[in-house]
Amino acid sequence: MLIVRNIRITRILKNTWQVDIIMLITCSLVYFFHNEFVKYHIEIPAIVPTVMGTAIAFFIGFNNNQAYDRWWEARKIWGAIVNDSRSWARSVMSYVQQGNDGAAIAPVQQRLVYRHLAFLYALKAALRGADTNGYTRYLTDDEAEHIRSYTNTHNILLQWQSRDLKMLLANNSIDGFRFIQMDSLLTKFSDEMGMSERIKKTVFPTTYSYLTKVFIWIFVVAIAFVTSQTMGPWSIFISWLLSFIFVSTQINGMSLVDPFENNVAGIPLNQITRNIEIDLLQMLGEEDIPAPITPVNGEYVL
Amino acid sequence: MLIVRNIRITRILKNTWQVDIIMLITCSLVYFFHNEFVKYHIEIPAIVPTVMGTAIAFFIGFNNNQAYDRWWEARKIWGAIVNDSRSWARSVMSYVQQGNDGAAIAPVQQRLVYRHLAFLYALKAALRGADTNGYTRYLTDDEAEHIRSYTNTHNILLQWQSRDLKMLLANNSIDGFRFIQMDSLLTKFSDEMGMSERIKKTVFPTTYSYLTKVFIWIFVVAIAFVTSQTMGPWSIFISWLLSFIFVSTQINGMSLVDPFENNVAGIPLNQITRNIEIDLLQMLGEEDIPAPITPVNGEYVL
Amino acid sequence: MLIVRNIRITRILKNTWQVDIIMLITCSLVYFFHNEFVKYHIEIPAIVPTVMGTAIAFFIGFNNNQAYDRWWEARKIWGAIVNDSRSWARSVMSYVQQGNDGAAIAPVQQRLVYRHLAFLYALKAALRGADTNGYTRYLTDDEAEHIRSYTNTHNILLQWQSRDLKMLLANNSIDGFRFIQMDSLLTKFSDEMGMSERIKKTVFPTTYSYLTKVFIWIFVVAIAFVTSQTMGPWSIFISWLLSFIFVSTQINGMSLVDPFENNVAGIPLNQITRNIEIDLLQMLGEEDIPAPITPVNGEYVL
Amino acid sequence: MLIVRNIRITRILKNTWQVDIIMLITCSLVYFFHNEFVKYHIEIPAIVPTVMGTAIAFFIGFNNNQAYDRWWEARKIWGAIVNDSRSWARSVMSYVQQGNDGAAIAPVQQRLVYRHLAFLYALKAALRGADTNGYTRYLTDDEAEHIRSYTNTHNILLQWQSRDLKMLLANNSIDGFRFIQMDSLLTKFSDEMGMSERIKKTVFPTTYSYLTKVFIWIFVVAIAFVTSQTMGPWSIFISWLLSFIFVSTQINGMSLVDPFENNVAGIPLNQITRNIEIDLLQMLGEEDIPAPITPVNGEYVL
Amino acid sequence: MLIVRNIRITRILKNTWQVDIIMLITCSLVYFFHNEFVKYHIEIPAIVPTVMGTAIAFFIGFNNNQAYDRWWEARKIWGAIVNDSRSWARSVMSYVQQGNDGAAIAPVQQRLVYRHLAFLYALKAALRGADTNGYTRYLTDDEAEHIRSYTNTHNILLQWQSRDLKMLLANNSIDGFRFIQMDSLLTKFSDEMGMSERIKKTVFPTTYSYLTKVFIWIFVVAIAFVTSQTMGPWSIFISWLLSFIFVSTQINGMSLVDPFENNVAGIPLNQITRNIEIDLLQMLGEEDIPAPITPVNGEYVL
Repeated sequence: MLIVRNIRITRILKNTWQVDIIMLITCSLVYFFHNEFVKYHIEIPAIVPTVMGTAIAFFIGFNNNQAYDRWWEARKIWGAIVNDSRSWARSVMSYVQQGNDGAAIAPVQQRLVYRHLAFLYALKAALRGADTNGYTRYLTDDEAEHIRSYTNTHNILLQWQSRDLKMLLANNSIDGFRFIQMDSLLTKFSDEMGMSERIKKTVFPTTYSYLTKVFIWIFVVAIAFVTSQTMGPWSIFISWLLSFIFVSTQINGMSLVDPFENNVAGIPLNQITRNIEIDLLQMLGEEDIPAPITPVNGEYVL
Repeated sequence: MLIVRNIRITRILKNTWQVDIIMLITCSLVYFFHNEFVKYHIEIPAIVPTVMGTAIAFFIGFNNNQAYDRWWEARKIWGAIVNDSRSWARSVMSYVQQGNDGAAIAPVQQRLVYRHLAFLYALKAALRGADTNGYTRYLTDDEAEHIRSYTNTHNILLQWQSRDLKMLLANNSIDGFRFIQMDSLLTKFSDEMGMSERIKKTVFPTTYSYLTKVFIWIFVVAIAFVTSQTMGPWSIFISWLLSFIFVSTQINGMSLVDPFENNVAGIPLNQITRNIEIDLLQMLGEEDIPAPITPVNGEYVL
Repeated sequence: MLIVRNIRITRILKNTWQVDIIMLITCSLVYFFHNEFVKYHIEIPAIVPTVMGTAIAFFIGFNNNQAYDRWWEARKIWGAIVNDSRSWARSVMSYVQQGNDGAAIAPVQQRLVYRHLAFLYALKAALRGADTNGYTRYLTDDEAEHIRSYTNTHNILLQWQSRDLKMLLANNSIDGFRFIQMDSLLTKFSDEMGMSERIKKTVFPTTYSYLTKVFIWIFVVAIAFVTSQTMGPWSIFISWLLSFIFVSTQINGMSLVDPFENNVAGIPLNQITRNIEIDLLQMLGEEDIPAPITPVNGEYVL
Repeated sequence: MLIVRNIRITRILKNTWQVDIIMLITCSLVYFFHNEFVKYHIEIPAIVPTVMGTAIAFFIGFNNNQAYDRWWEARKIWGAIVNDSRSWARSVMSYVQQGNDGAAIAPVQQRLVYRHLAFLYALKAALRGADTNGYTRYLTDDEAEHIRSYTNTHNILLQWQSRDLKMLLANNSIDGFRFIQMDSLLTKFSDEMGMSERIKKTVFPTTYSYLTKVFIWIFVVAIAFVTSQTMGPWSIFISWLLSFIFVSTQINGMSLVDPFENNVAGIPLNQITRNIEIDLLQMLGEEDIPAPITPVNGEYVL
Repeated sequence: MLIVRNIRITRILKNTWQVDIIMLITCSLVYFFHNEFVKYHIEIPAIVPTVMGTAIAFFIGFNNNQAYDRWWEARKIWGAIVNDSRSWARSVMSYVQQGNDGAAIAPVQQRLVYRHLAFLYALKAALRGADTNGYTRYLTDDEAEHIRSYTNTHNILLQWQSRDLKMLLANNSIDGFRFIQMDSLLTKFSDEMGMSERIKKTVFPTTYSYLTKVFIWIFVVAIAFVTSQTMGPWSIFISWLLSFIFVSTQINGMSLVDPFENNVAGIPLNQITRNIEIDLLQMLGEEDIPAPITPVNGEYVL
């Protein structure tokens, strides 16, 4: 996520320079083609690129709207994960009490909170598609060993939480009311996990973005033709400028459709996960708290 | 669901070649008609197709927006089915315990999870309108025999789950709190089933899509007339190009209004159902796990 | 609800022929007025109808969007009624058991399900404003007699369900947990009834649709003037064509704002209610099941 | 709320006549200024008002959309109040039973329902900012006396309901399950009260509506200049007509942003409250039922 | 939040004067550059700024829509905080009763309500980034001392409420049903806190607003060029006017994306918090009630 208000123009050009160059070449080719072969023979009326431009601006606008909605929905899901993680830790700290077996409760509380952190790191790794073993530091050696045989690790971790919760109830460490409340939190984590995966795995309808790209190219050619008729070589620059507006908006919108990617437009999962980690370790009363994630170049957080 | 970012232009032409040819013919007819009869007599001002084009771009944009919302709503419903299926299996595995009758719980757990898989396959078959007997492999022979007399099979399967749940409660295999929680999952499955059927059975207002098609044809004729006035035979190509933008966007949008169809734009029910199947069988500790659905041509999943 | 993809153009003309004729007359009057009095004196610049057309397309688009949302909300409410009706029957069949009074439970179950069907038919009749006595066939003679003294019949039927539920609890036919679950279903029916009535009774802001109509007429006159300047008598046809696009979209959108009307654009309450009736009677194990509603002319269902 | 489909044009002119006159004067001034000083010197290209008009149509469209959403949200809140009021009365009638003190339950039921009606009338009065003492007819003399010392009367009435509910529980007139259900209804009333107040007290961002007004005036001047160039004095009429489209749409949209005002566009709180009153008194079995609110001039209800 | 309907034009100019001046200078430079070097050589067709203007109006419209949604979501969250705070106080006053330890309940009630006020003031301070110690007046000296060692103060205050609630349950001051209800309120406060922080910390996608700004500058230059061709020096004024419409709408929209900032467009957190404070202190029966927040200059509240 970008955290600066004014981004350098170079960043935008860095994202679009390839398409910019191809567009300049295309505009030049259209200009020369028009100059050599078409001039004096046919004239494209201005209405053609006008109608095209209006329609394309529309379709890009709608695409961007839907892309933004996906991105904001992803952000909301992880906002809910933050809230529910705090509620989980608060419930673990406030409601778990010494049970029938007389065992100390501090290790139980630590295990339930640590395993939740492992769940978060495993989920983040699955969504980002990287760093897949970092979460084991919050598991016991046994658990870390055992979990290697599973692929869908974050799901198994939730199942273990569920199993422990049932044992706490049997042991009278929590009563029925607390059980319902904590069990519903596990269901929420399961739902939020599933919702994240839904956004991750559902490709934004390819035809939408692909057709828009095709239309923009058609528009580039049309506008280059029309401006060639009156502007001479300047038409190359002007056509590129108009196309740049469409292309950069389209690319910009599409950068939001995959909000869990590890790029500058994505949801800052590293930062969010770390903040939850800090909050939960503080609630456990731990000393050794990791530092918050710092922005890259003071420009964005991951 | 398409999973590639760049689709072949042939795919788009494959979807639109019929209408493309009819449009080219129409544009040609308009051109010749204009050339023979209209030229020098009347002139259509450019404003006519401009206003038409703007208005039609708008109406297509709104249609696409609503089509996308239907598609995304369908995807959310099946995302919720994924989450709730996992919660169902987790509840079955964690909460069902030996009851008063002293019977083993593993077969009970297997039956409840297997029957849920049968429910999913029956629901998928009903939504896709095909493959209607595949789900019986997750039923006992008795059940498979018995269910033949019903038409609304997925509804009956839910009713059987409800009946078993009541027996588990009577048998003390689950207590009242767990009963409420698992019963509410059955209600959720019932709701998600109903919501899928609502989208499946509610035709997107026909007048919307039909009128838009009529308007596009009016626009084709108007733009062909206007471009004929200045561009000669090239007007045929240019008019077709403009119409292509409208037609392909409209067709593309309409491909999303029936998200449960068994086509490349639909929600990948095969893949989602199989993934749930894999997750649930793993949670049961089964050995014989089916493979995930692989994309067709590396291009889309069904 | 229309169920065909391609509707006959005659249907659209049937909905708009009156306004079409008035528009043709208006365009003709403008043409002759322009020809006789205005020509050579003043010229309306093309920008006037262009700006008008863009603005009106916008306002129509927004109106249609809101009309569609109303329609889809109504459809969702009745989708929820389908789901909750099934849940009601499933609960009645699975949870009601022999109580302290030793009476048979089958008649009780039948009464609770029958009365729910009466509720649905009474609600449908109130929303459609017709067929108000059909629901009494699912009531006992006593109830049918007694209900005549009430105006808001569907509300009274819910109150009777509530009263019976309380008696079942007192009689130990259902326990506290089941009572809560079934009582919350009654609350849902009450909410869905209220939401249907809200849509039924809330007039879509009249000024919105009225102003749009006024604007379209202003546009017709303006475009007829402008095209008269260059096109001669053809301007009558062209102006009508442009206006037709606006008028038919507007009329089409407005046909969705009252989704409970008994017309081809409305939610098919007859079909939905009958489907629930079939499902619920099957769950009761009845023999004499009514047939589903068949489409009218194979074209739409009511 | 207007209840007629076709409103008299006079109503629209009544809402806009002041601005209409100012606009006609402005257009005339622009025309004369252009005629005397500008003509032959400079020419404003048509593109200027075209771009302005498109942009302004957009911004008005978005404003209207948000205004409509506010209005519909307000209507939904009061629809929920209707539903929950009926549920409250149904719960009071079905669940309250003779308690430990052996007192009759009819007066208790009447008090709980009457006080709810007082709450509704007090809330309506606060939202409408008028008629603040009508609600006391549903309070006992003691209560009516006591409540004078409070400002936020509707909040206090809810607190009294809460206090009574607690006494009913202590008295065994309702059991724990019923208490939870009825208490959650009180929370809903509190939420709906708060949501109504949120809409009432939150001013729609002034800059939005103000800027749009400023833009419309800029547009009026620009279009008057441009049409003056070709149309002579007719430009006054045409400019006013175009501006009328923008101004009346803007005024119309803004009439919805304050849905609780006591005007023709507002939510008909009088009608809704009276309907609840009728329903609830009927459920109590009262004889003396007030008549429904009748429309004013057959044109709108308040 | 602005509370006046007509804001002074000076306020708008105050927000935009810097950019206005830069724009006037830019337009002048373009005019002179065009006059000296470009005139008679090349002509930019009007279609270029037309298409640009339409596209930019679109993108600004979408941005504003999303900004408004953020602002309204923030307002809804704080509306929910108002409702839940009242429910909290109502629950504390109605449900807490003398427990096993025989201690007086008034101090307990006061502590629970006071600490909630401290929570609100701490949350407000964190969102506004100011006035961070005002909340301690609602804490005991011990608590105020103790809380200094924490950074995330509002989270700790919720944890203390949770701890006290558990003690009340153990002490039989509240029973299990009341515990669930009050505990769920604490979870709601935690969620609302998290949702506020999500909006506060999530930067609105910088590329959106930045690109829009870049596009507006491109548009300014283009429109200045085009108007220079026909209007002479007046093009400077006209270009600035057109740009002003875009720039002020864009700036206005962006003023809503950070709704918790301490500026005139923000949510009036001071006013809302104070109103809750007044309501809650009145419910406690206190004498010394602070006055409501008064608007600044009668123009806006903070």
